[in-house]
Amino acid sequence: MSDLLWIAFERTYRDIMTQFSPQDNNGVSNSEGLRGHIAAQPDLLVHFGADLDVAEISEIGDGNLNFIFHVRTPKVQMAIKHAPSWSRISRGTRALTRDRLGFEARALRLFRELAPLHVPTVYTYDADASMLAMEFITPHEILRKGLMAGQEYPDFADHISTYLANCLFNTSDFALKPSDKRQLVAEFSRNVELCEITERLVFTDAFVGSDDNRWTRPQLDAAVVRIQSDPIVRMRVEQLKLDFLTRTDALLHGDLHTGSIMATSDETFVIDPEFAVFGPMGFDIGMMIGNLLLGFFILPAHGGSDAQRENILNTIETLWEGFVQKFATHWQKNRDGGVFAYANFAAPVLSGATDAFLHSYLARVLDDAVGYAAVEVVRRLIGRAHVPEFDAIKDDDLRARHEAQAFQFAYNLLRSEENINAIGQMTAQARAACTV
Amino acid sequence: MSDLLWIAFERTYRDIMTQFSPQDNNGVSNSEGLRGHIAAQPDLLVHFGADLDVAEISEIGDGNLNFIFHVRTPKVQMAIKHAPSWSRISRGTRALTRDRLGFEARALRLFRELAPLHVPTVYTYDADASMLAMEFITPHEILRKGLMAGQEYPDFADHISTYLANCLFNTSDFALKPSDKRQLVAEFSRNVELCEITERLVFTDAFVGSDDNRWTRPQLDAAVVRIQSDPIVRMRVEQLKLDFLTRTDALLHGDLHTGSIMATSDETFVIDPEFAVFGPMGFDIGMMIGNLLLGFFILPAHGGSDAQRENILNTIETLWEGFVQKFATHWQKNRDGGVFAYANFAAPVLSGATDAFLHSYLARVLDDAVGYAAVEVVRRLIGRAHVPEFDAIKDDDLRARHEAQAFQFAYNLLRSEENINAIGQMTAQARAACTV
Repeated sequence: MSDLLWIAFERTYRDIMTQFSPQDNNGVSNSEGLRGHIAAQPDLLVHFGADLDVAEISEIGDGNLNFIFHVRTPKVQMAIKHAPSWSRISRGTRALTRDRLGFEARALRLFRELAPLHVPTVYTYDADASMLAMEFITPHEILRKGLMAGQEYPDFADHISTYLANCLFNTSDFALKPSDKRQLVAEFSRNVELCEITERLVFTDAFVGSDDNRWTRPQLDAAVVRIQSDPIVRMRVEQLKLDFLTRTDALLHGDLHTGSIMATSDETFVIDPEFAVFGPMGFDIGMMIGNLLLGFFILPAHGGSDAQRENILNTIETLWEGFVQKFATHWQKNRDGGVFAYANFAAPVLSGATDAFLHSYLARVLDDAVGYAAVEVVRRLIGRAHVPEFDAIKDDDLRARHEAQAFQFAYNLLRSEENINAIGQMTAQARAACTV
Repeated sequence: MSDLLWIAFERTYRDIMTQFSPQDNNGVSNSEGLRGHIAAQPDLLVHFGADLDVAEISEIGDGNLNFIFHVRTPKVQMAIKHAPSWSRISRGTRALTRDRLGFEARALRLFRELAPLHVPTVYTYDADASMLAMEFITPHEILRKGLMAGQEYPDFADHISTYLANCLFNTSDFALKPSDKRQLVAEFSRNVELCEITERLVFTDAFVGSDDNRWTRPQLDAAVVRIQSDPIVRMRVEQLKLDFLTRTDALLHGDLHTGSIMATSDETFVIDPEFAVFGPMGFDIGMMIGNLLLGFFILPAHGGSDAQRENILNTIETLWEGFVQKFATHWQKNRDGGVFAYANFAAPVLSGATDAFLHSYLARVLDDAVGYAAVEVVRRLIGRAHVPEFDAIKDDDLRARHEAQAFQFAYNLLRSEENINAIGQMTAQARAACTV
């Protein structure tokens, strides 16, 4: 499901399996091997009991890094994720430590506690077998695919803003005691391998230039040269990267795009937090907004209506406004951490100032989010890892026209010296830039 | 040497030893036990050889947390630090994990590599025995004591600015690859116990109010009420605390006051980095400046001359200017880390912008440093842990007069809405506030 390493062609499970013997993964990467591993884990076996022998097991993953098995008995369904010691998409040529699954398991459990309606339950995590067993989410669909098909998700903005406000506030110093927070920072700062991918693919290659980049040629050639040699953009992006590297504001999902969401019209689940790390709150929010914007800009090429496009902008606005409102509620009710703790700011003379602080804090989060959203839009258009919504349009001229509009919009955001101080300013710019 | 837990009275080594049997420390806390531990560590024994039997061993520590032994043979001198599982000053009532010595050993080794002229050599660190063997620095004196006695240190500003520029630049994302930096952040984020002391004593108790606070009564009563109920100051201090908790700009010493420096007129060593943690660069610089300012404000009560006071202000200015110049040299020569790496900013069109970034980055460091310096001055006057320069003045009215001047100066800095954008602005304010 993660597409941070997306490349244009897909490798099939069969392709990979012909190259690797089951021994490479302790036999987890095939159905019978997996059955044996389930049988060997009492905590996991207890969910299946004697039905394990008749369980149907099939590989259903379409991501770049891992395998996902669907295990089904008449009474139980489960998703079991297996991380091999290489990335799936590399066919074994790119080594990746299996630790990544441990970070994902840990993050899922933390986020599940904070946003139980929007994060799947983890049953077991076995580091030795590199197996993570969790709730099988059905019949939910990957949000990116649904949006591309013009599907509407009227409650998504409400759900994702709840997820964001709960997870970001409650892993910040507003909620956590400093010692607990520092221990979590210590834990997730070891997630260096996947962070390296973010640092390179999100913040560096597209803006510095790299042989791995691709874009629609020759239509976008000039745009690529322009942005890579623009001092204002380059400084802004580098500052956003520095913030990503140095600010431990909250525990991020780290890869929160529309491909990391499974949704129906009335339920939303956030999956795949294997890139989890502490960073600026605006990063998660901006990644999500950036991917919604990408969907917005390409929707006309998929035959989407004006109303459907407006729906996406409306989702972005509602997402941000919901986040602000829910974050403010936590601020009023759950401020018991290392800074601005109620006990220390109870005096009436301080209440106006604490409200002003919250206001300026959220203004900074919005400014960051807009910056990260713009970075995400640009790097998905001219970097290595594009998004399926654009890749699906095979007519180069048609695709390039929409790419150029999205690009110009993001470029303007990154160049602007005026902060966006209301989400409506940004959506208005998007609306104006998308001339169909 | 650390005085973060300074309290007004001293406990003697004998007092403590009568309460704790040597078994509490595996026998390290007495000379004969220590001799045995040296004999049992081949890496350490090799420095002494057969002379160990005749080595003179004496406890020389005057700090709050640990014991320091001076081990001397005709050929070798060494300082061996031992951290018991409680703080020395608490007489065993306050438990502290012995890990603190591991963080100190690790930080000393890192800083020694980066600033070899200003950090003692570590010979061995034995976690089991909680023993750190290092270079015995002699005849250097604790800077705080020397300054109080009117001693001059003409090269100190040059030395400490070298130490600061080398250590802060080279542990930042300007020099380190993101993965290496994250691993270091992971390591030092576990140093929670001593950070907790900083968070409470530096940023919280003095400003929120605490039964542990003490100040000259009734002379400073009104000042204490005023600062604790001032919304502007409280917000500024809380923002500085939030920055300390969330910004991993560089590896800090964490307790860099004039009691953590051993100096002669031509050599300077920085010791005791047991509070080491990643944080804003301005924290280390501000702690140092704050402690120099405290010395400046009380110097008249010790009979110091106008020229000696000017020397301290001059030291502060030279320290900052030296830091800027040396940091800029690293920026020109050693920028090979996660952000603003030369390879990515080589284009001539980008050089003006990178210079502008450096300028604004250093302006932010100065603003932070001024804030942390002001926090340090205030909390040393009205919090729990005062400084010996003030405690040594036994005439309450005399001391209170100087305390009030230092307090008002720091209070104004914390209230000011205008940034200090040149160090001379701050020293001018100090000069004006100190009316002798």
